[in-house]
Amino acid sequence: MMKVYVLSLVAIVVGVAGLTAAASRQAKQEAGPIFVTQMPPGYRDWKLISVAHEEGNLNSFASVLGNDIAIKAYREGKLPFPDGAIIAALHYQFVPSADNNKAFGRDQSFVAGAPTNVQFMVKDSRKYAATGGWGFGHFNNDGKPVDDAFMKTCFPCHQKIQQRDLVFTRYAP
Amino acid sequence: MMKVYVLSLVAIVVGVAGLTAAASRQAKQEAGPIFVTQMPPGYRDWKLISVAHEEGNLNSFASVLGNDIAIKAYREGKLPFPDGAIIAALHYQFVPSADNNKAFGRDQSFVAGAPTNVQFMVKDSRKYAATGGWGFGHFNNDGKPVDDAFMKTCFPCHQKIQQRDLVFTRYAP
Repeated sequence: MMKVYVLSLVAIVVGVAGLTAAASRQAKQEAGPIFVTQMPPGYRDWKLISVAHEEGNLNSFASVLGNDIAIKAYREGKLPFPDGAIIAALHYQFVPSADNNKAFGRDQSFVAGAPTNVQFMVKDSRKYAATGGWGFGHFNNDGKPVDDAFMKTCFPCHQKIQQRDLVFTRYAP
Repeated sequence: MMKVYVLSLVAIVVGVAGLTAAASRQAKQEAGPIFVTQMPPGYRDWKLISVAHEEGNLNSFASVLGNDIAIKAYREGKLPFPDGAIIAALHYQFVPSADNNKAFGRDQSFVAGAPTNVQFMVKDSRKYAATGGWGFGHFNNDGKPVDDAFMKTCFPCHQKIQQRDLVFTRYAP
């Protein structure tokens, strides 16, 4: 009798927890954008889209990679990107290369230094409907996602690139 | 009878041509370094090694890619690179991005502009013994290799990076 009682209690607790999680998810979606909280596996093996450099506070080097769905859409010039497309921006410090400068005989060479963060755009037009069909993700070098306050700045800026489905990076042939 | 004669003549001509080609190849190898004269197929799909920027006259953006043998050696920290490794440096103009600067609200963003050339290092320790086991290739945007005078400048510079088997680019994690 006791065992049945305990099991029932567990069932009730699990049930309540499940309902709570679903309700919380629902509330979150209604409350605002949702973000990418897990790094897509295997992204370091993806094909190259292009490279970029930001001066100023960022002082960053980026290599922008895409999964097969993203690369196919880029190569075919297909917009908007289809669901399943994922774009990854791998950021590094922008540092001078002592080796290269020595070989060249002058200071002109910059390379990727320590990795700083990886950002993702994941296309899922239903899940991320509130942010133009794109889920945004930002993972610092420790692999952890950053807080929602930071993440809320992604969409307003990417929204400025309506003509390329919110994607800044163009494909480099 | 005529047919046999014609065939014999063809055989002689082909034979002579073959010998001439072999002799010419031999002479070339003895005369100096040999270069990569064909672009390795499929290189645009290779995995990323790293990115680089050169200021000055070059004003270039590079994405450096590797075939599977090169990537494996890089990831395992294996030196010298094994035969079959190929490294490709895809060069573009280093240009400001009007779109990105507008979105950021300040001039800080540089992207890959028009492609300028693709360079290759092909590891084959026998074929390219005269140049440290690496065959060097440089193809301008028209897909054509450049002249030998230009190509002869590759090895002397790469030779300065003995500690990394003549390869400037380090792997970006």
